[in-house]
Amino acid sequence: MGDLEKMESTKLREEITAGNGLIHRRTLLRGALFSAGIAAAGVGAVHADDGVGADAPEWMKTPGRPFSGYGTPSKWQEKVQRIFTLGAGRAGTGVSRTPLHLLEGTITPGGLHFERHHNGVPDIDPARHELFIHGMVSRPLAFSLDTLMRYPMETHIHFIECAGNSGAFSSAQPPQITAGELNGLISCSEWTGVRLATLLAETGVTKEAKWVIAEGADAAAMSRSIPLEKCMDDAMVALFQNGEAIRPEQGFPMRLLLPGFEGNMNVKWLRRLNITDVPVDARDETSHYTELMPSGKARQFMFLQGAKSAILKPSFGMSMKGPGLYEISGLAWSGAGRISKVEVSADGGKSWSAAALNEPVLPKALTRFRLPWHWDGKPSTLMSRASDEKGGSQPTRADWIAQYAPGQGYHFNGIQSWGIEADGTVKNVYA
Amino acid sequence: MGDLEKMESTKLREEITAGNGLIHRRTLLRGALFSAGIAAAGVGAVHADDGVGADAPEWMKTPGRPFSGYGTPSKWQEKVQRIFTLGAGRAGTGVSRTPLHLLEGTITPGGLHFERHHNGVPDIDPARHELFIHGMVSRPLAFSLDTLMRYPMETHIHFIECAGNSGAFSSAQPPQITAGELNGLISCSEWTGVRLATLLAETGVTKEAKWVIAEGADAAAMSRSIPLEKCMDDAMVALFQNGEAIRPEQGFPMRLLLPGFEGNMNVKWLRRLNITDVPVDARDETSHYTELMPSGKARQFMFLQGAKSAILKPSFGMSMKGPGLYEISGLAWSGAGRISKVEVSADGGKSWSAAALNEPVLPKALTRFRLPWHWDGKPSTLMSRASDEKGGSQPTRADWIAQYAPGQGYHFNGIQSWGIEADGTVKNVYA
Repeated sequence: MGDLEKMESTKLREEITAGNGLIHRRTLLRGALFSAGIAAAGVGAVHADDGVGADAPEWMKTPGRPFSGYGTPSKWQEKVQRIFTLGAGRAGTGVSRTPLHLLEGTITPGGLHFERHHNGVPDIDPARHELFIHGMVSRPLAFSLDTLMRYPMETHIHFIECAGNSGAFSSAQPPQITAGELNGLISCSEWTGVRLATLLAETGVTKEAKWVIAEGADAAAMSRSIPLEKCMDDAMVALFQNGEAIRPEQGFPMRLLLPGFEGNMNVKWLRRLNITDVPVDARDETSHYTELMPSGKARQFMFLQGAKSAILKPSFGMSMKGPGLYEISGLAWSGAGRISKVEVSADGGKSWSAAALNEPVLPKALTRFRLPWHWDGKPSTLMSRASDEKGGSQPTRADWIAQYAPGQGYHFNGIQSWGIEADGTVKNVYA
Repeated sequence: MGDLEKMESTKLREEITAGNGLIHRRTLLRGALFSAGIAAAGVGAVHADDGVGADAPEWMKTPGRPFSGYGTPSKWQEKVQRIFTLGAGRAGTGVSRTPLHLLEGTITPGGLHFERHHNGVPDIDPARHELFIHGMVSRPLAFSLDTLMRYPMETHIHFIECAGNSGAFSSAQPPQITAGELNGLISCSEWTGVRLATLLAETGVTKEAKWVIAEGADAAAMSRSIPLEKCMDDAMVALFQNGEAIRPEQGFPMRLLLPGFEGNMNVKWLRRLNITDVPVDARDETSHYTELMPSGKARQFMFLQGAKSAILKPSFGMSMKGPGLYEISGLAWSGAGRISKVEVSADGGKSWSAAALNEPVLPKALTRFRLPWHWDGKPSTLMSRASDEKGGSQPTRADWIAQYAPGQGYHFNGIQSWGIEADGTVKNVYA
């Protein structure tokens, strides 16, 4: 009887909180139970010749490489790239996704933030770029980058999610692609900039004003209509991302940040805010980013990204290494505020167990959840279900699909499921 | 009488909280007062021909560049680099500093994390790297990266600060260099990894054990003695940094993270943990990283980084653009826990005003502080003073210097001062 079996016969049963081996989240805080389970799965004993002295690896025998002005990831990580597929002749139009399944924690490094461009990444000279605020204002003003840098700033960690993220779940058959390919149109950064309300106080806004038309300085002049109420709330003109100047693909030298609102509205390379009393019906709020209903009519102006979660470990492309203890880990988020709860099921939704949420849980930011699982080696279906502090939660995929015309793929936030097969293969399943 | 003068005559006086123009931190939350002050300083009016239509800038007239697998900062930011100066013939030994004065927020992007190498950056094949835990243990074990990836993980935002950071303040004359050159041996990341206590529970630790000798896999085999108590507390074997695999310069594929302890002990490229009952008196805890006392004796094993702060805006190399409203902004931190308070003085320490702390304030992490200031154009001395939740606070530079033999430069956490001259020049001063 090995370590694992002994443990199972004593402590493990007491810790089970839901069907098919889900273990209480507090178990993460005790080391011994969890680690003994993995030890059995292949940690090596140390021998006298384990790389000490003459047996040291070659990288201990020669000086390493010198300092660098701006560092890059290890060459051994060259496969950790944004994932993109583009049609011929449209090099600058499309999306690239964050490889969520290869990352950990909650911050997305700048180099891997997802991209959605409508006519490529403009190369903007920051000294020649200005933000114009005009229309229904007391005094129209133009703000240079230098001027904006003098205003009081705020720093907040927020996700940005494309409205089309996870749209592949609207297909009839579950797509067998990675969690990053499925859900990678979301990224999370620490943003610093000037609150938009501060700049609107500067220009003044007339009583009739209700909308703000934001325009980017790219070759698509990407435009969206934004309710003035949001612009007076937590909207920001972001200048910094993860501590450094905002990246070109995210809007250098400045972008609009609308925490919790669909990505497309967070206009990059922001150059104009036209204050109006009506929305503009821009291309990207008519031909795109609307929801096609069963009636054949399209629903417009669905701004908020709903409560949502995805299990990333395990996920498609990984394989389980035999029965034993595993950590289930993933990300949850909501455009409405803080995640209040993430529940995990290992039996296809029959029973659920609350996952541990990594602190601090921040509003409109990615939240990492974790739960230990003892897999018995039998076919299993894993699911996660997030709830937010405003009462939002994830519908089943079937309930989500039933709201729309066939193929409608914007704003998918249904429950996702991974099927674990007896040989350890992980597949996307509709359960 | 312009906007600024009108404001001064009414609201501004009510908001003054300390000598020489410091304004209540809550003023940041109201837009109008602050922004009106900057508007007077040069925001442009919008004209009909402001870049709309035919006058659009050239980057709106041609498609932008296509997608990229791993992004890099804008070419316009090429001067934002780590700052390093190295002796001839020692390309891999020394330090590079984070350019704190050019950054914002609290997270340090991976490419700009400070470096301290003792024999360069090793190029480690992660498939051949193992962590050995041996010595006073029940069963010595070797952990591969794949095995560690199966353990339960934790994610925390923490700073790492070199013990030698800000050592230039021990010089007799105030060095006229940037805030990054003075204080840039500190960086802050989101770290994810396995709690060391989990791995020590796996190996077991004998009753006699009191110390852990950590060794890196670089060509210096960098070694340090660490109290076992810290290793059983919040120590982590970190595998991820800001979401992606830890960078080569920070220890790829794994480093020891000892939140709040001096940087040198957070051993990079971690390969061995030898559990012992006595410290090893390694080179870097005898010839370096000790504090020389007035008696001529050196104090050893001063692990904790004290409460500390630095104003970054304004700072050396910047110049004030005439009298008016400014945001004073900087960073505060403590190895003991959360920052509880940052006070700012604009009159050389005669009076102090509490700065706003950017939420969330996390333990052993960088905290951004901000305070509005109305500069009247006269010579002024700015200071900041941080306190932490454990009762720690910053001494004056004179009090800090008096503790040591001349020139001792480790663990400087004295109050720093910027002198603002009438022409707007910012200088480092000992006040």
